[in-house]
Amino acid sequence: MFNKSVYTARRQRLIELMARTAPQGSRGIGIFIGNGEAAAQYRDNAYKFRQDSSWLYFFGIDAPGYAAVMDFDSGDVKIYADDVEIGDIIWMGPQPSVASIAEGAGVHVTAPFSALKEDVGKARSQHRKCHYLPLSRWYNTMLIETLMGLGPGDLGKAKEDGATEGRAPSLELTKAVIELRLIKEDCEIAEMDDAGALGQEMHTVARNSIKIGTIEQEIVGKMDGVTLSKGWGVSFPTILTQHGETLHNHLHDKVIEPGKLMVIDAGAENNSHYASDFTRTYPTSGKFTQKQRDVYQIVCDCNEYAFKLTKPGIAYRDVHLAVSKLMLEGLSQLGLVHGNLDDMVAEGVAGMFQPHGLGHNIGLDVHDMEDLGEDLVGYDPDQRRSPQLGLGNLRMARVLKPGHFISDEPGIYFIPALIEKWKSEGTCKDFLNFDKLKEYYDFGGIRLEDDVLVTIDGARHTGPNRLPIQPDDVETAMQG
Amino acid sequence: MFNKSVYTARRQRLIELMARTAPQGSRGIGIFIGNGEAAAQYRDNAYKFRQDSSWLYFFGIDAPGYAAVMDFDSGDVKIYADDVEIGDIIWMGPQPSVASIAEGAGVHVTAPFSALKEDVGKARSQHRKCHYLPLSRWYNTMLIETLMGLGPGDLGKAKEDGATEGRAPSLELTKAVIELRLIKEDCEIAEMDDAGALGQEMHTVARNSIKIGTIEQEIVGKMDGVTLSKGWGVSFPTILTQHGETLHNHLHDKVIEPGKLMVIDAGAENNSHYASDFTRTYPTSGKFTQKQRDVYQIVCDCNEYAFKLTKPGIAYRDVHLAVSKLMLEGLSQLGLVHGNLDDMVAEGVAGMFQPHGLGHNIGLDVHDMEDLGEDLVGYDPDQRRSPQLGLGNLRMARVLKPGHFISDEPGIYFIPALIEKWKSEGTCKDFLNFDKLKEYYDFGGIRLEDDVLVTIDGARHTGPNRLPIQPDDVETAMQG
Repeated sequence: MFNKSVYTARRQRLIELMARTAPQGSRGIGIFIGNGEAAAQYRDNAYKFRQDSSWLYFFGIDAPGYAAVMDFDSGDVKIYADDVEIGDIIWMGPQPSVASIAEGAGVHVTAPFSALKEDVGKARSQHRKCHYLPLSRWYNTMLIETLMGLGPGDLGKAKEDGATEGRAPSLELTKAVIELRLIKEDCEIAEMDDAGALGQEMHTVARNSIKIGTIEQEIVGKMDGVTLSKGWGVSFPTILTQHGETLHNHLHDKVIEPGKLMVIDAGAENNSHYASDFTRTYPTSGKFTQKQRDVYQIVCDCNEYAFKLTKPGIAYRDVHLAVSKLMLEGLSQLGLVHGNLDDMVAEGVAGMFQPHGLGHNIGLDVHDMEDLGEDLVGYDPDQRRSPQLGLGNLRMARVLKPGHFISDEPGIYFIPALIEKWKSEGTCKDFLNFDKLKEYYDFGGIRLEDDVLVTIDGARHTGPNRLPIQPDDVETAMQG
Repeated sequence: MFNKSVYTARRQRLIELMARTAPQGSRGIGIFIGNGEAAAQYRDNAYKFRQDSSWLYFFGIDAPGYAAVMDFDSGDVKIYADDVEIGDIIWMGPQPSVASIAEGAGVHVTAPFSALKEDVGKARSQHRKCHYLPLSRWYNTMLIETLMGLGPGDLGKAKEDGATEGRAPSLELTKAVIELRLIKEDCEIAEMDDAGALGQEMHTVARNSIKIGTIEQEIVGKMDGVTLSKGWGVSFPTILTQHGETLHNHLHDKVIEPGKLMVIDAGAENNSHYASDFTRTYPTSGKFTQKQRDVYQIVCDCNEYAFKLTKPGIAYRDVHLAVSKLMLEGLSQLGLVHGNLDDMVAEGVAGMFQPHGLGHNIGLDVHDMEDLGEDLVGYDPDQRRSPQLGLGNLRMARVLKPGHFISDEPGIYFIPALIEKWKSEGTCKDFLNFDKLKEYYDFGGIRLEDDVLVTIDGARHTGPNRLPIQPDDVETAMQG
């Protein structure tokens, strides 16, 4: 937890942002629900507790069973939670009171959890606006439905027209929270570097464990062990696969075979719950074949080019497009595409090779604030999402500002089912060499990802030791 | 997954057991809900998927989004799940169909998930009984409420009088499932030994990592890494603490100090989701002090004595009581208690030192079937739970049968808050030497736990290599 002044300042800024939305007296209240325990097998055998990220941002209290109300008119803040009962202290040892925990977050008023329903009920009876954020956990959904007097499933989605007021998460509150969380403070940047260091340690252990005959799960488990030893755990389920072309692949039951490409996309969440997210692609035999190296170098150049372009004032959407052009240039040299590069970029040819975006925001979530709405988080008000495969999958399109934390993760994949689909539909047929592409059906995929902080005048990689990325450096590291 | 004949036979036996509950034609249907993904940070960043254990037992399919209906009158079984859409195959690679997956579980009839609501609705409109098990996940609770036409929170608990029919989990079905799952089949015993081996490997790594100055979390993470490398993960959140007297302690932020006792209670869940659960207590300095060794030896003798008594025909409740007597005898020799041993057992004096039961069932859950009701699982119909601390916390009291898998886990803890409570209330004051107990306020706690299979004529420990338990062996192992 940071010093309480950090949380007090963030709440103050949120109250100021909400002041823009309505005149004083009609701004209403904000209801914040912390997470509870989540059952794995049965209710008392829970998954490792993960607090809600927006709760962590505004209150920092990393324990289940908390809620809070911010009064956007008066500026008052109240925390709701139940003290440990005397009887439980026998089992749990001496426990700090809710009041003292709340003080640590700079909040001076507390009440039992049951008072939340009364206080929200009172606000509703006074016809005050009740703002709350989109919810990811089922229990929290049920709780808000109860607080708001809604039936099951009545909870809608935030709409611009506001017609669903009370029945939907608050668009005003969601936008204000995004505005704050998008720009990382210095204390957060230090945590991001810490999570980066842990993620880099995971990857180093993984790289040193690649050996023909090893089962993939063994490496995944070792990586988990690294991040659990010093942090909360993985920031998302590790992707470790010799079939990098299968983008949604979380099976790890394969034996490592010679001559394959191994994509490892993994990151750590540190004990303060900040995330890292790195991808490297390794030749399982320790040396790239020439065919592998040719494609690898294109992806590597794209990663470096994106980093070079990253600085305040440029839209990350434009970085994505510039990188697409460089990628198509490389693919053209391999004879896989042909034609005018700008035409190909415009037609979205790159999307067949890289059907995902160049990057996303990172912070307390690895896809930062994905629960608050991908477009609200990643797109400026004047930007619209493209319908094209690839560009349309871009999660972060905004004009960059200092304090943005983003991933830089170009990739090239040869997905036989997708290539066949484009071929049969005739999509971009004038640009694609389908015959030549056939030779790559067993190639797999390559992705290379770093986490990048936008600085005052440029960008820097996060974590202390950037993972080797140039093909020669990768081969050398694999020997070491 | 086992061979499909295993699942077919289990379902057949369940249908036979349900046939006892009502005449043919009025037995109704059983609704089985598999688990879905559970959000950690946001909905698409989920915890590692854990299937429902009863679902695994009857269907084995280890994937989210499944449900099934068993017709207890006709014997028909139908599985509900959605095939992966063609578009998704581009991302997920080629996927087997629901029909072929169901065949692997011996089920020949499948339908889209949406048909579940229609089929249950049809059964309800025909006034057929709809049986379902108690639910642990909130989403599954919401789903059953929807299927049964209940409002939020209407779902009650199973009652003997059946007055809540339709609004509560089925007591008949719950009892039948418990009857089956309590006795482990040979194929399950092999999995339990596999989970045991993995748990023992976790503990061995932990024992070798105890070093003054190390942060507890580092060892916890290493243990996690071992089980994740070869299995699903931990079977419950690891307890690793120099304050063993605090029974509900999942913090691992302490530095290892000399002269302490370190309780490590941890187990593995293997890839087939069978659990192990072992506890050992180590002197952080590598050698027990005489005071530590004296108490340790009592707990060790209790563990061995419980194992010696364990065989078919004896109630585990009686084993608990016999062990309590031995424990009190040892404590008496240390001058901590005095008086007639049988009187002390009857008065529950041992509960102040060991406020938990001797053991619990283990299987697909570490507290096997805890979601189905602790008393239904652990108590024979003619047994009632004691109100006493300790004995009343016993989770497994039943008369033992071959195929039962239980933990043997005596412990002695000096919990200052509990001792002070008993002292101030005068509880068992004639037997307790409160002055002498003061000398143990900073002692901590000791627990020693093995997993035990009840065999035809006795019992055996599970896993290939029982962890060292005698104090000399523990000290030797710590040097190695």
